[in-house]
Amino acid sequence: MKVYPECLPCFALQALRAANRSTNDESLKWEILIEACRHIATFQQGMKPVEMAEIIYPLVSQKTGVFDPFETVKHETNQHALALYPFFKALVTESDRPIETAMKLAIIGNSVDFGVPQNHLKDLKTETLATLHESLAIDDTGDFLNLLSQSFSLLLLADNSGEIVLDRLLLETIHSHYPDLKITVAARDVPIINDVTLADIKEAGFPSFISAVSSGNRTPGVILEKANKKFLDVYHAADIIVSKGQGNYEGLSDDADDRVFFLLRAKCAIIARHVGVKEGAMIVKKGSVK
Amino acid sequence: MKVYPECLPCFALQALRAANRSTNDESLKWEILIEACRHIATFQQGMKPVEMAEIIYPLVSQKTGVFDPFETVKHETNQHALALYPFFKALVTESDRPIETAMKLAIIGNSVDFGVPQNHLKDLKTETLATLHESLAIDDTGDFLNLLSQSFSLLLLADNSGEIVLDRLLLETIHSHYPDLKITVAARDVPIINDVTLADIKEAGFPSFISAVSSGNRTPGVILEKANKKFLDVYHAADIIVSKGQGNYEGLSDDADDRVFFLLRAKCAIIARHVGVKEGAMIVKKGSVK
Repeated sequence: MKVYPECLPCFALQALRAANRSTNDESLKWEILIEACRHIATFQQGMKPVEMAEIIYPLVSQKTGVFDPFETVKHETNQHALALYPFFKALVTESDRPIETAMKLAIIGNSVDFGVPQNHLKDLKTETLATLHESLAIDDTGDFLNLLSQSFSLLLLADNSGEIVLDRLLLETIHSHYPDLKITVAARDVPIINDVTLADIKEAGFPSFISAVSSGNRTPGVILEKANKKFLDVYHAADIIVSKGQGNYEGLSDDADDRVFFLLRAKCAIIARHVGVKEGAMIVKKGSVK
Repeated sequence: MKVYPECLPCFALQALRAANRSTNDESLKWEILIEACRHIATFQQGMKPVEMAEIIYPLVSQKTGVFDPFETVKHETNQHALALYPFFKALVTESDRPIETAMKLAIIGNSVDFGVPQNHLKDLKTETLATLHESLAIDDTGDFLNLLSQSFSLLLLADNSGEIVLDRLLLETIHSHYPDLKITVAARDVPIINDVTLADIKEAGFPSFISAVSSGNRTPGVILEKANKKFLDVYHAADIIVSKGQGNYEGLSDDADDRVFFLLRAKCAIIARHVGVKEGAMIVKKGSVK
């Protein structure tokens, strides 16, 4: 997905939110915002929206000395989701279609996003009870299950903290049906917004039968051209790929093939428009979207 | 009021909204937003927020060739309010405290604002019925009425289209109690957002006992240093001044004396913080706020 004009003010807002989490110094915030706007004014029309994060967030860190302004929030959301794990697990266990229920939960988990103007999450349990029976606006679940049944290896591209606990549940559920499936989960290389790093995967309590890999990306979404070799080997070898969230969609939607299934909640108007759904909609979408 | 770091992304959003009203050309919108960010990066910390409008809105007009992107909206909101004039008039006539009721209505009218992210107005009648009995978060109405009773001349600094019809009703109501009071209403010099120009005052059907003057300001708020002589003569001579809305507050709050009463709804978080009220609050506030 290419950047839209609408993304530019959003980048400035992201600089502001990160600055607000990093300092109370109004003059420093001013300096950060001015500098952010100066950088934004140099952005090129063909870039992927997530690429801005390589400029904007390091700028805030550099000015404030705060390397990871979302560290606390990540820990809190992970712990919040972990505390609810038995509740989520029971929903899956009691379901007639456990994999589909776990997929839906993993999409609901995608509400935990501090990169968007409104962080939709209040409480994951409340959110789940309110939206679990909502239909998917795009539903390629049938194709997913079909391909899954023929697959030897699965790669999940993780997105946000908190959400990662639901990803774990999805992968555990898939494993219980396909115990021989080789499963890998991919994280960001460095802390960026509340995106998942290898440390979050550890905190989320992933079982040992799931391998974890860093994508090498410093953006809040996988960009293949900027990924590391180890990740690319796993990516190209995987029979089926679960791409979670908006950031991975922004990074991959132009390049995805039919092994890739985008599971996300469309939390911003621009992504909703690009996917062709209403804001807030949940989707399971196969392949590229151009 | 001086600009806050939070205002900078908002300026980019204003460029976007004006661009969206002026063109469907995505590349042109991109160009406008890039240019807007380039300008924003040069803004100085001591500026008044409304001053950005002298850069941002003319930039959009220059790039798109659309001089007044809010022309239709202004006409529609004026006509909407005019159609409701008998409803508002009846509320005042039936009130035990007609001037205070008309003041409240004029504040509710301040919801008609296309400069803020959420245009709070859906329907002025619904809005009025929902909020007419809400208390003012700051209430210097007593001081206002007291000063009014001793005044020979009143100046109202108008803000938005639609709202201007309620300003007319307020001034008519004051006139019916103080028929000898010399009343003047001040408009912007050129179309800017949905702010009132002399053409809107004409459209709003002001009676002949109310004089109209242009402030000379091209900003969506009065800035004394940039006002014309004719306006400044009226401003300095007035015994009591009604300053409507956020833009006039941004422009005047540092310079106001105790003749000035700010009547507004705090529609953005920053102004609410500056005034010291909750977002959405209605106020009648005397004098400067620093």
